[in-house]
Amino acid sequence: MDAEERLTLEKEIIKKAQDIEEIIKTYLPKEEGLQRTVIEAMHYSILAGGKRLRPMLMQETYRLCGGQGDCVKPFMAAMEMIHTYSLVHDDLPAMDNDEYRRGRKTTHVVYGEGMAVLAGDALLNYAFETALKVFDSCEVDGVPLADRYRAGTRALSILAKKAGIYGMIGGQNADLEAEEAGELSTDQLIFIHEHKTAALIEASMMIGAVLAGADEETVSALERCASHIGIAFQIQDDVLDVIGDAGDLGKSIGSDEKNHKQTYVSLKGLKEAEKEVQSRSEEALAILKSLPGDSTFLQKLTEYLIHRNK
Amino acid sequence: MDAEERLTLEKEIIKKAQDIEEIIKTYLPKEEGLQRTVIEAMHYSILAGGKRLRPMLMQETYRLCGGQGDCVKPFMAAMEMIHTYSLVHDDLPAMDNDEYRRGRKTTHVVYGEGMAVLAGDALLNYAFETALKVFDSCEVDGVPLADRYRAGTRALSILAKKAGIYGMIGGQNADLEAEEAGELSTDQLIFIHEHKTAALIEASMMIGAVLAGADEETVSALERCASHIGIAFQIQDDVLDVIGDAGDLGKSIGSDEKNHKQTYVSLKGLKEAEKEVQSRSEEALAILKSLPGDSTFLQKLTEYLIHRNK
Repeated sequence: MDAEERLTLEKEIIKKAQDIEEIIKTYLPKEEGLQRTVIEAMHYSILAGGKRLRPMLMQETYRLCGGQGDCVKPFMAAMEMIHTYSLVHDDLPAMDNDEYRRGRKTTHVVYGEGMAVLAGDALLNYAFETALKVFDSCEVDGVPLADRYRAGTRALSILAKKAGIYGMIGGQNADLEAEEAGELSTDQLIFIHEHKTAALIEASMMIGAVLAGADEETVSALERCASHIGIAFQIQDDVLDVIGDAGDLGKSIGSDEKNHKQTYVSLKGLKEAEKEVQSRSEEALAILKSLPGDSTFLQKLTEYLIHRNK
Repeated sequence: MDAEERLTLEKEIIKKAQDIEEIIKTYLPKEEGLQRTVIEAMHYSILAGGKRLRPMLMQETYRLCGGQGDCVKPFMAAMEMIHTYSLVHDDLPAMDNDEYRRGRKTTHVVYGEGMAVLAGDALLNYAFETALKVFDSCEVDGVPLADRYRAGTRALSILAKKAGIYGMIGGQNADLEAEEAGELSTDQLIFIHEHKTAALIEASMMIGAVLAGADEETVSALERCASHIGIAFQIQDDVLDVIGDAGDLGKSIGSDEKNHKQTYVSLKGLKEAEKEVQSRSEEALAILKSLPGDSTFLQKLTEYLIHRNK
């Protein structure tokens, strides 16, 4: 990808992210009533200018698998709510104790710690309330009622599993324990990357496929593809901390080393880390190319995410 | 109810609570893998000897409405997981800062604050994972597939709504804000009781009815009944803090007044509070008696809960 192609792609991604933000907004609760403050804290944290990567992957996978209509929208919003709640709780003083995220004060700094715990809970709970709206509105001509219910409940199960103890929360548990212990094996690190980061990316692509009516083989292939994307994305994060441009990255280079944080690079070396990113990237692209349907944009997005320099 | 009847009823309730605890245990995740600690914290907090009131009301309502089979079981476990997560997060230093609950150290005291946040998140998320199991196993002869899906998804929607910002979390928001403000109106207090306490009781009885295939009229009647039970239960709490027996109650009498906590009694007086408990109790019982089916146990349980002395 040359510089011009990259710029064109970046513009396309930003446009898609803006469209997704509009979709998310339509699913947010109104800031009113005696629950107003917690709803304001939900808005504050979710409308903080994220990349909307997970709903974007979901929407593109839905399209790739022939999905039409609005079925996928409540799940796109739900996915971003779950991603956001995990950041709000991760930033708490009892967890990572971060006061800033993307240049803005974190939720507990603005609303207080108790309200941030509650806002995270509210986002997680509201994610399921939102995803369940698929059964209110999802009228697809020619698809029997039981098939629609089957796809909707399957998508809900994927969302719940990948967000929970066998997915993201499992990864957070391992991360929290490794931090307390002050040491980490490569197996533990891969477990953390697989669960804390890749699980929601897997869920995003699987749900897109399931709601579009894809067969089990396709759903499994997309799960593997998403796993490669998620893990490569995280290892690239570790690589960029060593070789990246501080200005591009928006954080200081070498911060992992300064914080004595063990990463894929510190455990296996820079060369091995770059090789791992490359091989996982190739595997992910090979899976996308093997599927019927036009995956051009998903391929470009994958390359962009994995080989980013910030 | 005389002393002997009361003792018999208490034994029956304890027996039922034990049976429910066995059901809950079958739905708990195994304490293994790199997510072991958070799963241990989930077990620690849910197996702390609660009254299992919410799953009991759900099961009894399911039976009252003619429910047979195991459909209700995953929802009973899910309901107790949601109730438990709310206690774990409520006890955090940033919220009520309680170090003991039912004579045992609270989850954050044993596992640390970060792990307690995570264990609460895990219980909430796992509640939905668990409730979704209704679609794996719920084979009811003679009920068409679409009807089973409809009832299951309706029950999930009730669970999510009553646990979220328009239910329990909404009540917690109002409670947290009132505590910070140091003052409370009667309207706010009723909102808190309705949402923080009654909402999950409403969900319990509604879900029992929905899963048993009850009609909308019955579901609505049970929602009103549960609302009366929940609010009367909370006001009785306030009353007992003034007139109760410290030994029976397991906490010191007059603690609300000492903590300058505004309650229904401090706002409206003891006499008015007792009248309100009585009238809500009568309304709840009248609804139960108006329904077809044998509600004898539910009536006794309602009287026991509302007119308890501890």
